[in-house]
Amino acid sequence: MKEIKIYSPATIANVSCGFDVLGVCLDNVGDEMIFRQSEQKGLRIVEITGADLPLEIEQNVAGVAGKALMEQLNPNFGIEMIIHKKIKAGSGIGSSAASAAGAVYGINALCGYPLTNKELIYYAMQGEALVSGAPHADNVAPALLGGFAFIRSYAPLDIISIPAPKELYATVIHPQIELKTIDSRSVLKQTVGLKQAITQCGNLGGLISALYTEDYDLLGRCLHDEFVEPKRSLLIPNFAALKQVAVKCGALGGGISGAGPSVFVLSRGKQIADCVASEMRNIVKEADYQCDIHVSPINPKGIKELI
Amino acid sequence: MKEIKIYSPATIANVSCGFDVLGVCLDNVGDEMIFRQSEQKGLRIVEITGADLPLEIEQNVAGVAGKALMEQLNPNFGIEMIIHKKIKAGSGIGSSAASAAGAVYGINALCGYPLTNKELIYYAMQGEALVSGAPHADNVAPALLGGFAFIRSYAPLDIISIPAPKELYATVIHPQIELKTIDSRSVLKQTVGLKQAITQCGNLGGLISALYTEDYDLLGRCLHDEFVEPKRSLLIPNFAALKQVAVKCGALGGGISGAGPSVFVLSRGKQIADCVASEMRNIVKEADYQCDIHVSPINPKGIKELI
Repeated sequence: MKEIKIYSPATIANVSCGFDVLGVCLDNVGDEMIFRQSEQKGLRIVEITGADLPLEIEQNVAGVAGKALMEQLNPNFGIEMIIHKKIKAGSGIGSSAASAAGAVYGINALCGYPLTNKELIYYAMQGEALVSGAPHADNVAPALLGGFAFIRSYAPLDIISIPAPKELYATVIHPQIELKTIDSRSVLKQTVGLKQAITQCGNLGGLISALYTEDYDLLGRCLHDEFVEPKRSLLIPNFAALKQVAVKCGALGGGISGAGPSVFVLSRGKQIADCVASEMRNIVKEADYQCDIHVSPINPKGIKELI
Repeated sequence: MKEIKIYSPATIANVSCGFDVLGVCLDNVGDEMIFRQSEQKGLRIVEITGADLPLEIEQNVAGVAGKALMEQLNPNFGIEMIIHKKIKAGSGIGSSAASAAGAVYGINALCGYPLTNKELIYYAMQGEALVSGAPHADNVAPALLGGFAFIRSYAPLDIISIPAPKELYATVIHPQIELKTIDSRSVLKQTVGLKQAITQCGNLGGLISALYTEDYDLLGRCLHDEFVEPKRSLLIPNFAALKQVAVKCGALGGGISGAGPSVFVLSRGKQIADCVASEMRNIVKEADYQCDIHVSPINPKGIKELI
């Protein structure tokens, strides 16, 4: 293979009670990336559209992730990468992760797939480290594996791929406000009550069970986050109202996507997910900020190869 | 049915990272209980063997649980209960829970099974409250449901029954030392680090996943408790050595059963579970306390009716 074009999807990290451990893959929001073999060795980003991002390898998440993998695989050809960003940066739906995961997927493909998608996660994480300071996997893992990805541990890296119940849809609203990661992080407490921690464990264990048994009601009962949402949601305009309309439409529940400002809602079936989107639109109509709203099934496979 | 004889099994609560949320049912350690219809209405305990326990309904966990159910079902006959205790009190393998769960099972059976075993949990918990101060479900639920029982929430009561992987065995050592529940509780901190809490969530989610996928290796990787074991294990003689021999035998891992002093180890297959038992015996041979050691498959159904 001399050239490949891929679709690298958006993802939701920090899925409610799965704070820092659970991510899920969206299906119809994502970047396109093209990879071409070149005679000149090494990795180059030759074009970026849709976002004002640096072409320099060391300053670009796709570059950093891709370079880490190239050093490992050491192919006897070079690779040129073109990135068409469709996921807005800072939206909280894994924009940088899509770039990093896409980069390692494309490079691995041009090299003849020596590594599995699970093995690629480590390299994609190196790109994520550039933007967030620490390598984290809860966006890159679902982008590469599809469905839900559960991060059991970072040392050693231990990631479990869990299929999503088939009728599950996500509605994501991205209010176009600036929410600095530093603000998002500063509301995190360094300790939690033992009782809260046990409540979180109860909901998380229930959620994992619900995914395996496709028990939508149980899934809905588990979508509560004790650790972060109570504080972080205060930084997101209309958060309570957005969750409230989700309940009104019959959705299962939701929370903050990643570190925000996007808010996600999970529903059984497209009809409810569409209802949530429409009601959310009504809420923000009066607000003095713009927003994007996406309705998406869960993407079962992650990154896709385009013709 | 005028009379029924049942076998009410021992259980392990606080299954490692499942502190306060996960219990599992043993197969070959348990009490026998007999229930007979009587003309005189109400519930009476007519005989207890194997333990010095009160016959008075209000002072006996089986009595309190049974009475709570009798008041709900209001049968037009009375019930006499005989308890043959085989599980030692204070052992940390659900001795009181076996009595409470057995009582409600037997009464429900004589009344023609109006309630499901899941519905009986609430009544069994009322008996548990007598000994522990607060009604808890992590022993009575696995005794009534078999396999693993996951307590998602107490308010409302939300319990998930999870089948155990088929080759799973437990080795339980009960050192016959007195470990007061008050000491066991006093080592609990009221707060935990956020990082620790996330580690616990990672292991718990992994453990739940491992149960559904019968992934024994993953199960083993998840058997770590951040919340309680580091402190509580200091009250249990030879704890580190007992865990060490388990690893040496190739076991998956283990922890403190309930609030102790029993220690449990989970293994894939009877051979490893037997090896653990034998090595544990060597460790305590030199010690100045007696101990019981049990090797048991996981009981998939919970309480059994005997002929």
